[in-house]
Amino acid sequence: MQSEDVFKVDVLIIGAGPSGLMLATWLARMGVKTHIVDKRFDRINSGRAIGHLIWIKNIMLTSTQIFDSLGFGQDIWREANHMLEIRVLLTASENPNEENELYRSDRIVDTMPGVSRFQQATLHQARIEDYLFRYIEKFSDIKVEHGREPESLAIDAEKVETDDYPVSITLRHLPKPATEFETLDDTQKPAIPNGLYRSNLVADTTAGLLQSTQEVQGTRTEKILAKYVVGCDGAHSWTRRQIGSVMEGEQTDYIWGVLDIIPITDFPDVRYRCAIHSTSGSMMIIPRENKFVRLYIQVTEVDEHGKAIDRFKIGPETLLQAANKILAPYKMSYQHCHWWTAYRIGQRVGSKFSAHERVFLAGDAVHTHSPKAGQGMNISMHDTYNLGWKLAYVIKGWANRSLLKTYVIERRQIAKELIEFDQRFSRLFSGRPAKDIMDKEGIDLKTFKQVFEKGNLFASGCAVDYAPSLIITKPHTAQNATSSRVPGVIGKQALAPNIPIGMRIPSHKVLNQSDARPWHLQERLPSNGTWRVIVFGGDVLNPVQLARCAAFAKALSSPDSFVNRYKPKGDERLSSFYEIITIHSSAREKVDLLTLPDIFHPYSPEYGWDYEKVYVDDVSYHEGHGQAYANYGIDPSRGCVVIVRPDQYVSWIGELEDVDDMNRFFASIFTP
Amino acid sequence: MQSEDVFKVDVLIIGAGPSGLMLATWLARMGVKTHIVDKRFDRINSGRAIGHLIWIKNIMLTSTQIFDSLGFGQDIWREANHMLEIRVLLTASENPNEENELYRSDRIVDTMPGVSRFQQATLHQARIEDYLFRYIEKFSDIKVEHGREPESLAIDAEKVETDDYPVSITLRHLPKPATEFETLDDTQKPAIPNGLYRSNLVADTTAGLLQSTQEVQGTRTEKILAKYVVGCDGAHSWTRRQIGSVMEGEQTDYIWGVLDIIPITDFPDVRYRCAIHSTSGSMMIIPRENKFVRLYIQVTEVDEHGKAIDRFKIGPETLLQAANKILAPYKMSYQHCHWWTAYRIGQRVGSKFSAHERVFLAGDAVHTHSPKAGQGMNISMHDTYNLGWKLAYVIKGWANRSLLKTYVIERRQIAKELIEFDQRFSRLFSGRPAKDIMDKEGIDLKTFKQVFEKGNLFASGCAVDYAPSLIITKPHTAQNATSSRVPGVIGKQALAPNIPIGMRIPSHKVLNQSDARPWHLQERLPSNGTWRVIVFGGDVLNPVQLARCAAFAKALSSPDSFVNRYKPKGDERLSSFYEIITIHSSAREKVDLLTLPDIFHPYSPEYGWDYEKVYVDDVSYHEGHGQAYANYGIDPSRGCVVIVRPDQYVSWIGELEDVDDMNRFFASIFTP
Repeated sequence: MQSEDVFKVDVLIIGAGPSGLMLATWLARMGVKTHIVDKRFDRINSGRAIGHLIWIKNIMLTSTQIFDSLGFGQDIWREANHMLEIRVLLTASENPNEENELYRSDRIVDTMPGVSRFQQATLHQARIEDYLFRYIEKFSDIKVEHGREPESLAIDAEKVETDDYPVSITLRHLPKPATEFETLDDTQKPAIPNGLYRSNLVADTTAGLLQSTQEVQGTRTEKILAKYVVGCDGAHSWTRRQIGSVMEGEQTDYIWGVLDIIPITDFPDVRYRCAIHSTSGSMMIIPRENKFVRLYIQVTEVDEHGKAIDRFKIGPETLLQAANKILAPYKMSYQHCHWWTAYRIGQRVGSKFSAHERVFLAGDAVHTHSPKAGQGMNISMHDTYNLGWKLAYVIKGWANRSLLKTYVIERRQIAKELIEFDQRFSRLFSGRPAKDIMDKEGIDLKTFKQVFEKGNLFASGCAVDYAPSLIITKPHTAQNATSSRVPGVIGKQALAPNIPIGMRIPSHKVLNQSDARPWHLQERLPSNGTWRVIVFGGDVLNPVQLARCAAFAKALSSPDSFVNRYKPKGDERLSSFYEIITIHSSAREKVDLLTLPDIFHPYSPEYGWDYEKVYVDDVSYHEGHGQAYANYGIDPSRGCVVIVRPDQYVSWIGELEDVDDMNRFFASIFTP
Repeated sequence: MQSEDVFKVDVLIIGAGPSGLMLATWLARMGVKTHIVDKRFDRINSGRAIGHLIWIKNIMLTSTQIFDSLGFGQDIWREANHMLEIRVLLTASENPNEENELYRSDRIVDTMPGVSRFQQATLHQARIEDYLFRYIEKFSDIKVEHGREPESLAIDAEKVETDDYPVSITLRHLPKPATEFETLDDTQKPAIPNGLYRSNLVADTTAGLLQSTQEVQGTRTEKILAKYVVGCDGAHSWTRRQIGSVMEGEQTDYIWGVLDIIPITDFPDVRYRCAIHSTSGSMMIIPRENKFVRLYIQVTEVDEHGKAIDRFKIGPETLLQAANKILAPYKMSYQHCHWWTAYRIGQRVGSKFSAHERVFLAGDAVHTHSPKAGQGMNISMHDTYNLGWKLAYVIKGWANRSLLKTYVIERRQIAKELIEFDQRFSRLFSGRPAKDIMDKEGIDLKTFKQVFEKGNLFASGCAVDYAPSLIITKPHTAQNATSSRVPGVIGKQALAPNIPIGMRIPSHKVLNQSDARPWHLQERLPSNGTWRVIVFGGDVLNPVQLARCAAFAKALSSPDSFVNRYKPKGDERLSSFYEIITIHSSAREKVDLLTLPDIFHPYSPEYGWDYEKVYVDDVSYHEGHGQAYANYGIDPSRGCVVIVRPDQYVSWIGELEDVDDMNRFFASIFTP
């Protein structure tokens, strides 16, 4: 604090939704001075049931993996509703029954077996934010400042390559309005909270609302000087406008309504995820925790041009009517409705993700799409999960600023893929079923199922495959040519074909060498900021292989190796940039930990040997055999070394002899 | 509250250790007015590291199952250290290596595969109490009153069969001493906390200590009038003395020391549970969470008569020396020692478990044994887990007081079995290894392993098999003849041979009929106070079987059935005494929930049909096939019905037609 009104921070996060909070988890964990502001006063709170506060979310299994790396994935997994099977229901001429009667056309597994130890799930956004908050509080004193509206943002172009706080922002302190949201819904008494205020069917009224309140009461402002600013401020992003990023893409004419209810119904599949495609329109059912389901209902009873739709024509009753028409002959009603909204499907991506790699955009601020695929919150959190550790490394002075370019490369690519997926998915869903094989405009069942199955893998987050960069060493292809990468360092994918460079490392069970406890590999990769060097030492009872491990360990122990060259000197949060995890393939009971090189199980004069670094691909007593080597495609008589990023994506694969490549790889990231 | 000094409560719990807190979980959950007092001021707190506060406990897998039924088993399971393998190390003439050098003789799985989804684990007692506290706080306003020393207890014999508060207790308010424990350890500066004050090597100094303090400052007393009093006040139980229960059994000459350290060692098996039997003595290693291990070390360097042992001769250094002698040629040292103690092994059971079924004893107050088998805390909690729901049912006026007799029958039996087990186990452990096959006094390796393996099942808690009683309908045998049981109601064990009447219901995975989610059956049996009627309906696609289910449902729905005859009228905590859970064996996708009888999935005008009561024994997408019918030994073309107690023990098994037996069974428990 320099004067009464000027604060200096390393990172200013604008917006305290899931993407802003996920960013803060990294910064909290790694000890970066951070400020979060939000213009709204209503921190999402699962105890209250106001408006978007009960915005229920589909949780991608990748998100659960990320939560698990933060230590609360299992809690969320337990609390959430799990979705295992998708039921496709149709009315169409293919129907062998009476026409216009719904029949079950197909059952599709919701997450392909073997993809992950988690499956798709649904839970309150509020509960997820609760967990993120608790994590942030555990590791830092970062608090969210509510009622702060940004007014101006300036980047000092001369300072952008220095650490002299190149970004300045003015924030206005807003007075707390009594009924922020209720004023937006004057058609319902008593009002069922809705999400229209953030729907694209109506203009963004929030700013105006706050503005007028402020004219009456609030005048105080404060100035923030920041090294970095991240705009996590949603679809109507203020930050986006400041850096001149423009949303590019299309708006469709499809209008959908959303209804969150506890259903009273004779429809038998209401606890399955359903894709219903009837001659009266389409509908999706997403079952949730605590007896709730979310219905996505195609709205056909409105102006077909869509542009000038009267939003007052849509409400919970009209949505329920539409649902009943689609579901006929089944009936559905409710006594509990927590929330509803309506929106026109639009898929757009920001023209810029960053200005000077000093101001960044993330989440809805830089990509919007239909909520139906249940990806908004997930992709938004993944954006900042990608950015957070990189920012921390650069701010701490450990890594070169060029690391930050990889955020834009990686997440813009994902946003574009998301939009493409969403376009296909929405078209599929909003179109009408084909009448017969000659009906070119209708959607045929086979296409429907194919897109659904492929889409599902995408929607799980498991299909994310980052392009080559400074930190992804796979070969260039025509599709993913980029310039920012380490010359000459190309990972040897063939050594572990099923650990794809550029993707999250798949997880299989291995046993701790020292106590036989089975662990999913991912459980040993918490998000604490370290890189992992995973040594697949192979059959260490074979003297040749043991000698190779010893030579590898010797090379790592050399003063010139990356391990000794790049160290977080004096940092209390990280004792090393690297954690060496060994997984060998010999019989557990024939190997003694202490016969392996010391660097694989480091000694501490205070705590003795480290028993948590060496694992074995062997059978467990109670949980089967993980078959990690076979599943990864690694030859036990050869082994390999894998570099995994702090966010669990695979950077590089090489031989035990390729320590020079590892040295060059890290030399291009770390500051000398 | 009648006057300033007289309080009326339903239950007074004396002692806030694990057994007292476990009792309070039931009473909190079921809404019973309860008071807990403890003379000590130091509520166990995992944040502090004083004395017995870090008394680390082995967690029986049965305890984990109980915790799971309370909603936090998974948290404890995740936090705990898991023990998978026991290593037996010996020095003996059988040793093919040089004599007196330790060699690995055997590896034994620590929990037989298939017994449970949990295995043995270790965790801070403090953490376990934290979870129990949090649960009690969630469901009630029960608080622990610290610094309350009981002074007198009287039972009004004329009132014992009435609810007119037959027990009165006077409690003295103690002033808080500054250094309650440090005064007990004046040999160590700075002191390593120890547990000698509760060891049988020294007299119970606590009372005297508190007494003298109190003479200076504290004089206030209060009177409690209670319907029931439960003494959970440990090995030196005050309550036990009041009701004239005498500890009966033997005290051995074996002396053992306990040391809790982070080991610095070249002994390779230190993270396994080890049984070490060397010519220099015996030792057990129990690995714990957070790098700690607990060593149980046979102390041989003391007066061999044992009776007059000078406790100042035992300390962490002497224990470490003894350990090193046993472990030779390996070496062990430490920089962190959290706790140590020493004790003489004694196995004793109280002559009375109750006075008039108005005052009860539980836990260490009524059985003591060596802590080495890691069962003290577990069995103590199981005592009150058995008692709590029964007390609640009787206090609420739902059940006859005769239900309380089953506590004494069941837990005295377990205490005796525990003592027998402990005697064999301790003798085995404290004896010397046999020199050769002619050495009758030594313990031979085969016996050692056998006792260990059998003992392990016992130690897991899974071998508990309650005798026939009012609530256990198995046939009498010579061993377990009791008088208190329902005449003529004998469970038909043959219908489900692997669901033994008298034991905890084993758990297998089944799928929710309505959403295909796999659940372990036990996960659907939370400890909320209800009995479960588990309907194994068999193949409900077979019209014969479906008709039997319908007839069963009709009989249950009759006004004369137990379901309609015994209801908790107006009680806000329980809407019914019974939960009907159906598990059928037909293909999931061919069955529609609504084709099954309504009582199997009850309808609510507010919430619609209940989707959480019907399960299916079918293959899951991601977690295999539970094969529940095959594992339970149930014939799908016949099925059966199982009555499970609120504490998950099996009461009765019968045919779908045996509703009359069920009526008679419940009629003998419930008040009309």
